[in-house]
Amino acid sequence: MQEISCLFCKIGVGEIATTITYQDDLVVAFPDQQPKAPIHILVIPKKHIKSADDIQPADEKLVGALIFAAQQVAREAGIAENGYRLVFNVRSHAGQTIDHLHLHILGGEHLGPMA
Amino acid sequence: MQEISCLFCKIGVGEIATTITYQDDLVVAFPDQQPKAPIHILVIPKKHIKSADDIQPADEKLVGALIFAAQQVAREAGIAENGYRLVFNVRSHAGQTIDHLHLHILGGEHLGPMA
Repeated sequence: MQEISCLFCKIGVGEIATTITYQDDLVVAFPDQQPKAPIHILVIPKKHIKSADDIQPADEKLVGALIFAAQQVAREAGIAENGYRLVFNVRSHAGQTIDHLHLHILGGEHLGPMA
Repeated sequence: MQEISCLFCKIGVGEIATTITYQDDLVVAFPDQQPKAPIHILVIPKKHIKSADDIQPADEKLVGALIFAAQQVAREAGIAENGYRLVFNVRSHAGQTIDHLHLHILGGEHLGPMA
């Protein structure tokens, strides 16, 4: 379920300490270390999945969990009313840098173009 | 289930004709009319949901359907291997222009910043 060398797997199991914004059985949220907006939080599944392109039909519940966690994180961060952006970057053309699925939550100002 | 004045609801039920990239019971995909990348396709639920922030727990299956449709669209468009970006824009700060949930699929080149 975890990949030994994966940074996000280690965060998922609490082996690497970080500020936890949200957590449930399936997912963990924490601030992006290189924020691209005033609020920039990542939600990841605890299970190792490489990217949004690698999500399998059996992971359906997990996809929902990522979105519902993001809604809650956005509400608690105070960005739900004005709005926010959710982004999955898949592989090199999108600039995916860590090969563990992560959903970016971006907000806190009028955001720039999405690509 | 549909909103009478909603453009995307009309596309969902086939009342407004457009090139359909993908379709199943729950979702429809079609090209964005103002593309921000060489490949820019939208996936929408047929059911009227205002934004990603308005998805309810009962819509879990629909969230999965959007992602699985996006994977298939990306494969058929030839952008899966090099990668692509999936974006939900929620409300004004993210620049959401149509109040019917839509998932942007962007690819075909190295994409710019996500915000």
